Amino acid sequence: MVAVNCDMGESFSIYHCGDDEGLMPWVTVANVACGFHASDPRVMARTVALAKAHGVRVGAHPSLPDREGFGRREMTLDREELTAGVVYQIGALSGFLRAQGMELNHVKVHGSLYGMAARDPEVAAAVADAADVFGAPLMGMTGTVHEQVWGERPSGFIGEYYADLDYRDDGSLIITREHQAFDPARSAERALRAVTEGVAVSENGHEIPVRADSVCVHSDTPNAVELAKAVHAALEPHLDR
Amino acid sequence: MVAVNCDMGESFSIYHCGDDEGLMPWVTVANVACGFHASDPRVMARTVALAKAHGVRVGAHPSLPDREGFGRREMTLDREELTAGVVYQIGALSGFLRAQGMELNHVKVHGSLYGMAARDPEVAAAVADAADVFGAPLMGMTGTVHEQVWGERPSGFIGEYYADLDYRDDGSLIITREHQAFDPARSAERALRAVTEGVAVSENGHEIPVRADSVCVHSDTPNAVELAKAVHAALEPHLDR
Amino acid sequence: MVAVNCDMGESFSIYHCGDDEGLMPWVTVANVACGFHASDPRVMARTVALAKAHGVRVGAHPSLPDREGFGRREMTLDREELTAGVVYQIGALSGFLRAQGMELNHVKVHGSLYGMAARDPEVAAAVADAADVFGAPLMGMTGTVHEQVWGERPSGFIGEYYADLDYRDDGSLIITREHQAFDPARSAERALRAVTEGVAVSENGHEIPVRADSVCVHSDTPNAVELAKAVHAALEPHLDR
Amino acid sequence: MVAVNCDMGESFSIYHCGDDEGLMPWVTVANVACGFHASDPRVMARTVALAKAHGVRVGAHPSLPDREGFGRREMTLDREELTAGVVYQIGALSGFLRAQGMELNHVKVHGSLYGMAARDPEVAAAVADAADVFGAPLMGMTGTVHEQVWGERPSGFIGEYYADLDYRDDGSLIITREHQAFDPARSAERALRAVTEGVAVSENGHEIPVRADSVCVHSDTPNAVELAKAVHAALEPHLDR
Repeated sequence: MVAVNCDMGESFSIYHCGDDEGLMPWVTVANVACGFHASDPRVMARTVALAKAHGVRVGAHPSLPDREGFGRREMTLDREELTAGVVYQIGALSGFLRAQGMELNHVKVHGSLYGMAARDPEVAAAVADAADVFGAPLMGMTGTVHEQVWGERPSGFIGEYYADLDYRDDGSLIITREHQAFDPARSAERALRAVTEGVAVSENGHEIPVRADSVCVHSDTPNAVELAKAVHAALEPHLDR
Repeated sequence: MVAVNCDMGESFSIYHCGDDEGLMPWVTVANVACGFHASDPRVMARTVALAKAHGVRVGAHPSLPDREGFGRREMTLDREELTAGVVYQIGALSGFLRAQGMELNHVKVHGSLYGMAARDPEVAAAVADAADVFGAPLMGMTGTVHEQVWGERPSGFIGEYYADLDYRDDGSLIITREHQAFDPARSAERALRAVTEGVAVSENGHEIPVRADSVCVHSDTPNAVELAKAVHAALEPHLDR
Repeated sequence: MVAVNCDMGESFSIYHCGDDEGLMPWVTVANVACGFHASDPRVMARTVALAKAHGVRVGAHPSLPDREGFGRREMTLDREELTAGVVYQIGALSGFLRAQGMELNHVKVHGSLYGMAARDPEVAAAVADAADVFGAPLMGMTGTVHEQVWGERPSGFIGEYYADLDYRDDGSLIITREHQAFDPARSAERALRAVTEGVAVSENGHEIPVRADSVCVHSDTPNAVELAKAVHAALEPHLDR
Repeated sequence: MVAVNCDMGESFSIYHCGDDEGLMPWVTVANVACGFHASDPRVMARTVALAKAHGVRVGAHPSLPDREGFGRREMTLDREELTAGVVYQIGALSGFLRAQGMELNHVKVHGSLYGMAARDPEVAAAVADAADVFGAPLMGMTGTVHEQVWGERPSGFIGEYYADLDYRDDGSLIITREHQAFDPARSAERALRAVTEGVAVSENGHEIPVRADSVCVHSDTPNAVELAKAVHAALEPHLDR
C-alpha cells in the first residue's frame, strides 16, 4: 500500500502558493505547513478543513524559523532549539486537527531542515525527539541519515519517492530553484515502478533501489495538478485510502 | 478551593523577564506564554519542565500577534483570525505539555486580548471557540464580558482576583504601566478575604463582590516573590493542590 | 502637471504580488513597500533598481508592523512608536535609493495606517513628523485629515485621485476586499477630468471636488496593466516626467 | 588617536539589555543595533538621542535576520540577500541619525555575521558592498578576513582591540557564552598597551600584534560600567573626541 503526499497550506497573509484545492482530490496525505516557513493560523485552519473535506490524512510540515527564506536557508540551531521548535509546530498543527476531530498522520520536515537531517545524525535525532512526543512516523529519503536515524525510532520511518524530480546515479535528488514541468505519463509510470519494484531510474538511466511508501508531488511544479492526477490514477490499486 | 496563578515563561531569546524560578514554589497554576507576545520554543519547553518539577499545573497564555508591543497594543483581527491564532498557541503549548506527560489546565489570554475580551462579546466568543477545542476553562474577571460569555460555555469560567492591583469603586482594575510594590501582608489579607468572603476592597474602601476561584500575582511586581509567598501562606488551607 | 502612482514591491520571500514589471512603464512614481506589511530587503533592492531602469521616481510606502495582515489590520500604537516605525522604514528605503543614486520623492503610507491618518490628527501628525525628517511630501486624500495636517507641513501635501475605485457622494472611497476590474477607457476619461477640472464623479453621478496631483492605480486590480496604460495615455500631455 | 566603542541599543519591546545610560559617558563611539538581532524603532530613536546627548558618535550594528537567536546563529544567505539586508539596516539607522542631525560614523556587524565575515571573503565582500553605499568604514579584527577585504575598500577599515576578552596565542578571541567580569585596572593597562604599542597579551602571556584603532567594551560584562570607566581614563590622552 502506498500514499500520495504533497506539501500544502503554504499560502501566507494575502499571498497564494500552490493550487491546494486542485491538488487535494489527487493526494491521500497532505504535509501541512506550520507557520515557520509559510502559512499562518488562518491558512492552517482552512487547509486542515480542506483536507478533511477530501478525506485526506494530515501530517505536520515543520521548518527552520525562516519565513523570509521560505525555510530554504540553512541555520545553525542547537539540538534543544531544534527539538523545541519542531514540538512547537507539530503542537500548533495538532490543535487544528483536534478542532476537526482528526489525528496526526506523520511528520515531514521542510526545506533546509529536511536536507540537514538527511546528512547530520544530530539534526535527525533532534527532529525525531519532537516527532516521538506525538508518536508520529517521520517521512524521508531512503539511503540517507533519515532512514538510519528515523528507521530505528519506535514511531517509524516512511520512505518517499519523488515523482517530479530527477535522481542522480547515487540516488540523490536534483533540486532546481524552480521546479520544472514533468511529463505526467512518464512520472506516473516511474512512480508505479518505484512502488511495485522498489526501483527509481536515474537521469542516466541507472536503476537505484528506493523504498516508496509514499510518492511525493510538489505543488509548485508548473503542471502539478495534471501530474498528481496521473500519478494518482497509476497508483490507484495500491493506494491505502 | 482556590488557586494562585502567575504569568510565566515571558523570557525571550537572551532576554530574561520575571523570576520564574523564585515564584514557581509559591503558585499552584502557571499561565505560560505561547510565543506571540513573549517566549520562544526553548523558553516554553523549559517553563513547562520547571512547572512540572514544582507540581504546578499549566495553562496557556495566548496573545495577539505582537511581540514588539508585548501583546499590549490593541489590534483589529476578525473572528476567524482570532480563533485560529489562539488555537495555534494553545496547540503549541499542548505539545510541550504532552512531552512532559501533563494535561492543559486552563486558558488565560494576555494583555490587550484580555482587555478586548472583557468588553467585546465577539472577541470573547472567538477566544472561547479556541478554548473549547481543548475543553479548557477560561480564566477572567467577574462582572465583565469574560464571565458573561465564558460562563455559559461548557468548558467553564474561572474567576480571578488580583492580589497586586488596586480596584476602582466600579470593580475595574487600576493598571499602571509599571507595576508598583505592594505590601505583602495587606495583599495576603485582602486575597484571603476575596477568597473566603467574595469581597474586594476598592481604592476608596468600598466593598465590591468578586469571584475569586484563582488569585493572580504578577511576576513584574517589584517584590513579586515576597508577595506571592505571603499570598500563598495566607491561602494555604484553601489551596486545591 | 500630474503623476501616475502605484504601490510596488509588495512581493515577499517566494511570494509574488503585482505585475511590477508590466506596470512600471505606465507609471511615473512608485510607492515602494518597506518591509513592514510586505517586501523584504532583496525585493526592495530589486524594485528600486527596476524603477530606476524605467526612469520612475520612488517614494516610501511605510505601514503598521503587520506582515501577517498585510498592514490592513488596525493597531493602537502611541505617537512615539508610530513616528519611529515610519522613520525606520523611510530610512531603510533611502538606503536602497542611495545605492542607486536616487532621491526620495515622497511618502505614501499604506493600508490601515493610511485610513487611520485620514481621520485621526494624532496619527497624521506622527506620520508627518517622520516624513519631515526626510523633507518628503506626503501623498493622501483631499478633504480628509491627510490634507488638513499634511497640508500645513513644510514638506507639502500631494493630493491623489483613485482611477480604479468608486467614490461615494461624500467623497469617500468604496473599498472592496478584492479590487474589481475597471473599464480602462472610462477610468482614463475620469482621471483626465479629475486632473484638468478637479472633479471626481461619484457612484450616483454627483460631482465631487478633488485635488489630483497624482493619479493612483492599484497593482491588484485584475486588469491593472491595461488600466494603467490607458490612464497613462490619457494623461500623457500633463505628466511631469 | 583611538576610540572606545560599545554595542548599544540592544533592548527590545519591554526587555532591557545593557546599561546604556551608565556606559554612554565612558565611550566615544556607539555601535547601535538595527532591529534584526535586537532593538526596535523606538529603542533606536532613544539610543541615538542618548548618544547625541553625550557627544558620542554612532555607527550601525547590523546582523543576520535572527531576533530569536540574538543574531548568534549562523545562517546561509546568498550574497545579494546579505548586502540587501545590511543596506536595509544601515539605512534604517541613518534615518534616526538624520532626525538628530548626525552623520553615520562606521559599521560594525554583529554576532555570527561578524564571525562569518572574519573567515569568509564572500560574506565580508557582501557586507562591504553595503557599507560602501554609505561611505562608512567597517570595524573588525586585524589578522582576519575583515582586514584583508575591508582594508582594501575605499571606505576604510577600523581595527579593534577587545578590552574584556582574552586572546589565544594565535590572536583569536576566547568567547564564552556569558561574559565574565574582568579586572578593570588590568583591562585598562592592557588596552593602553594595545593602543600605544600595538601589542595584545595572550592567555599564555605571548605578545600578539594588534591594530587598536578602537577599543571595544561589552555591555553585558558584569562590571561593564566600571571597566569602561577605567579604560576610558587610561586612554584619555589618546581619545579622538
